[in-house]
Order: sequence, then structure tokens, then C-alpha cells
Amino acid sequence: MRKIFFMSLLTVGTVAFDAIETPFGKTDKIVGGAATYIAWSASYFSKLINIVSVIGDDFDMKELELLKNENGSNKNRGKVDTRGIDIKEGKKSFFWSGKYHMDMNSRDTLITDLNVLMEFNPIVPDDYQSSDILLLGNIDPALQIKVMEQLQSRPKLIVMDTMNFWMDIAWDNLIKAISMVDVLTINDAEARQLSKEHSLVKAAKKILKMGPKFLIIKKGEHGALLFHDNNVFFAPALPLEDVFDPTGAGDTFAGGFCGFLDKTRDISFDNMKRAIIYGSAMASFCVEKFGTERLKELSHKDIEQRVQDFIDLVQFDIEIED
Amino acid sequence: MRKIFFMSLLTVGTVAFDAIETPFGKTDKIVGGAATYIAWSASYFSKLINIVSVIGDDFDMKELELLKNENGSNKNRGKVDTRGIDIKEGKKSFFWSGKYHMDMNSRDTLITDLNVLMEFNPIVPDDYQSSDILLLGNIDPALQIKVMEQLQSRPKLIVMDTMNFWMDIAWDNLIKAISMVDVLTINDAEARQLSKEHSLVKAAKKILKMGPKFLIIKKGEHGALLFHDNNVFFAPALPLEDVFDPTGAGDTFAGGFCGFLDKTRDISFDNMKRAIIYGSAMASFCVEKFGTERLKELSHKDIEQRVQDFIDLVQFDIEIED
Repeated sequence: MRKIFFMSLLTVGTVAFDAIETPFGKTDKIVGGAATYIAWSASYFSKLINIVSVIGDDFDMKELELLKNENGSNKNRGKVDTRGIDIKEGKKSFFWSGKYHMDMNSRDTLITDLNVLMEFNPIVPDDYQSSDILLLGNIDPALQIKVMEQLQSRPKLIVMDTMNFWMDIAWDNLIKAISMVDVLTINDAEARQLSKEHSLVKAAKKILKMGPKFLIIKKGEHGALLFHDNNVFFAPALPLEDVFDPTGAGDTFAGGFCGFLDKTRDISFDNMKRAIIYGSAMASFCVEKFGTERLKELSHKDIEQRVQDFIDLVQFDIEIED
Repeated sequence: MRKIFFMSLLTVGTVAFDAIETPFGKTDKIVGGAATYIAWSASYFSKLINIVSVIGDDFDMKELELLKNENGSNKNRGKVDTRGIDIKEGKKSFFWSGKYHMDMNSRDTLITDLNVLMEFNPIVPDDYQSSDILLLGNIDPALQIKVMEQLQSRPKLIVMDTMNFWMDIAWDNLIKAISMVDVLTINDAEARQLSKEHSLVKAAKKILKMGPKFLIIKKGEHGALLFHDNNVFFAPALPLEDVFDPTGAGDTFAGGFCGFLDKTRDISFDNMKRAIIYGSAMASFCVEKFGTERLKELSHKDIEQRVQDFIDLVQFDIEIED
């Protein structure tokens, strides 16, 4: 029997329930989690996304079916393989509840019920072994390491997201995980905490010595920076009339970034610049509605139009006199 | 006798002493003030800059001589006419002292001695009447209006800087001044205060209805936005290893912006984009040393190289499929 190889993306991260309150409204439990946002976003680029995660049997299985796009009925999207999501009988899914402040840059966590996440033991199914890109969502770095150690051959690119929480409680494992990846994505405060440098340029130099060849520093509404060797690229965030719900924007960015690299089969610095613009475009959609709602209804034309908005936002025309 | 007309820039603003403390060091009284930074920065572009200001006879006159470049000994710079600076006998110059916090984004004012600024009555000399661009530095909006009302013919472009202080204590005059200008430059917090909108896109729409055809929102280390009709342009700030002293960066930006427009004789939206990049380049020099120190030692080659750094920072190459 002949096996058909797709280019594909493997992601490991949370699939969860969120309850969100913003100045614009509030939701009951809706489907969220890093791997959910990543998969929705990447599916507009990648042919196949493989998820490793854990949920309880309380999860909204209709939402998973929609994400899978199994019969390919949504022509704009690739397929999502969810066989790597461990469903724990009689257990509850991870639940997070938070409330955003008026400025949308800060939020209070109201509830964190880890539930099944307490016993998450990520197992990479055999069918996922040949994935070309690995995107490690923000989870315990010990689990991120465990996933990397299960892969029989190294993916062409390993991208890792993390957060300040792991810097506070799991420093050694975090440093080990970071040493094993190609691209690290963190926000500006985390880059400062990780490097103990205030200047982001100095911070990036230190972090690039910890292992990753590329560092993406996310600055939310202020855009993102990509560092590689002595090169820096800056992509702005699109100025929006309203940011409705920022939840998942970072994961959506990472999903679009990796999906674009997967689709274009090019992991050069120049193509990473493009991938950051596509990732930023996807994030700009994400924040327009609650949860993953906006990510469910996109077309390729919408995405290209949004990328054009980014081009219009930053392009200028200067001839340097030598 | 034939009169030679230069393209020229008229600026009104403070010429003052500052004492600055940053995490990198502290200064005694050094020469500062908005018009000082504006004139240093613009002089790398404009042939002639006319200053209207007020100082006491305690001022450092050698610094003024250096700024004037009267005999044209610095070939990189135009000349600065300081005959519009009123020198008050027996009085003291405006003095400000401040201390920056570690993040360089916030500072405490330690001393504000208004001194001669209390009796500042700006008079535009006859020789300044034909200036092509008017840049109103951050002073009492009543004085900004007074300057505009003295001009016999309207300059080709009027640019105005202001700050939250005048929103708090001089609202009506501020709104009147804003209604009379072409370009307003303020920071993001000030745009929110002026418009009572949190979203900068909504804020810009409201402010553009108050009179100005162009609005520049300065976001410090996060760059600057230019709004005009329904167009938005974003210019990043250059990520720097160290920001040594941010004092005067906004004025240096405005000076470079107006100087470039004056030199190129083009006030279209596309040329304003270029002017913002040149203004940002000048500001990125300003913060590298205390006060105006770095602005005194530049060459055109330095400036073009810095602009090239901006191009490298933001350029990417995406072909949109239609």
C-alpha cells in the first residue's frame, strides 16, 4: 500500500473551555485553548494539521468535528487530525476564565481549573511522526521536551511558544526546551524576564545564544519583532477600530506563521518575514470576535486582502543616495 | 537690492536648560527645549530655520552660536536664525529637571522653573514672514494662536505639537489652535485624552474632524502612526541596544519631519511617509547621547545609513494573488 505524504504541521497544546469577559460583552463556556487557535489559523495554509492534546468527555465534540473539516467541505481549509487528542472518560476539560480591562492589554484570571491538564501525558501517534513542522504550544516545558524526544526524526522546523509562568516555576526545563528548538516566540515582558535585559535588542542577542536560531518577540498591539543573527525585522499590528477579544491572538499568530511556512516549504529568513505578516493578519481577524468565531468564516480572499492592508500600512518609497 | 528667497522653516518653542538623570548617568544644566531640538534636527535638511523663543541672559550663548552655524562651517547643516529669540536682561531661562525610570518610558519631573517663559510674548520678526513651513512647538496654545495670527500670509504647511498639560488647563484655546493647523503631532495617551476614544483608529477619525488634515500619533519606542483621510501609515522606531536619554526625541522627530518636507518641497501623503521615516531616524540618533550632543555630530551619510536601517527593518516582499 502506497502512503501519501502531505506537508504537515504537528502541534501540541491545550484544547479547552474559556469564559471571557471584555468591555464589549461576555461569553459562557466557549471552545478555546492554544492548539485550537493554532489549528484553526494554520488550516487556512497547511493541508494537514496534527494535534496532540487532552480533553475531558464534557468537551463540545461538534466543535471538534467543525475543526477537523474531515470531508473537506470547507474548501478554504486543510484538514485537522484530532486522533492525538486524548479524551479522558468521566473527566473535565481544562477551563480558564478571565476578564479584560478597558485597555485590552491587561486581564485578570478569574478561574483556572486545570482538570485533565493535570494528567496530560502527550503521546505522538505513529501517523504524526512524519510531520514537517512542530509547533509546541504554551504548556509545561517538561511536556514540550517529552514531545520532541518522541520524534524519530527531527522535523524541518521546531517552533516553541511559552510564557512567564514557566520562567517562574520550571526554569531548568524551560532552558532545556529552548535549547532544542529553532524558533522561540515570547512577548516583550517575557523576553526581558528570560534574558534579564531591558533592551529588547540585548535581550534577543542573549536568547539567540540559548539555542534558537530565530526569536519572535510579540508586542501585542505594537506588532512583532523577528531576530536572526544580526538581522531584525519588524511587523506592525494592524490598527483596528475595535479589539473585541484578544484571547488566542498569540496562538493564532503562531498558527498562521507555521501554516504559511508549511505551505510555502521555505524556512529562510525572508520567508519568515512573510510568514510573520500572514500570522499577524490571522491574529488581526481573531480579535474581531469572541473566541475562534471569526477564524471559522474566512476565505483566502479575506486573508489576501488583509495582507494587502499590512502592505499599505508600512510601505514607503525612499531612494537612498550612496 | 534683490532679495534671495530660501525655502525656510519657522519654529516657535522653548529654548531652555535641562538637568537630566537616567539609569545611565546624569547631567548638570545642559541646553534643551523644544525649539533647540527642532532646529538641530531640521538643520540637516532645511537651508534656513527661523526660531521665535525667549531666554534669560544666563543662557549659554556659545551653544546658540553653534546652533546658528552662521558662517556655514558645518557643511552638513543649514543656518539657524536666532534673531527671533527674545533675550530678557537680568532674567533666568526656563529650567526643567527630570529623572527617567529604568524602562525609559516614564519619568518624574523634579523641577520646573518657568522663569522667562512666564512672560513669553512671541513676536514674529518681519524677516520670518515668508517662511514656508511653520512648526509650532509645545507651548501654551494661546501663544501658538498668537503666532499664527501674526503671519501675513498662511505658510504652505502648519504643524503643531502639544501635550496633555494643555488639555487639562487650556481646552478651549487648544481646540481653537488645533482647528487652524494642517498637521497635529501628539502621543497615543494624548490622542485618547483629546478624543475620548480608546481605539487609536477611532481617536484619529475624531481628531481629523477637528481641523487638521494629517494626524501623527507618536508611540515612543513603538513607532508612529500617520493618519490622513482613510489612509494610515505606520513607521516603527528602530530597536536600539540602549536608549541613553529620551529627552527631546519627539521634538527631534518633528524637526526632521518638517525639515525633510521643507527640503523636498512636497507635502503629499506619500512624501509625509518619507518625512516620518527621516524624522524617526533623527529621533533614533537623539536618544543615543545626552541632550543634543548626538545631533551635533551627524553627517548626511550617517542619516542615509540610518534610513537604510529603517528600510531593512520593515521591508518584505509579498505578491498578492488577485
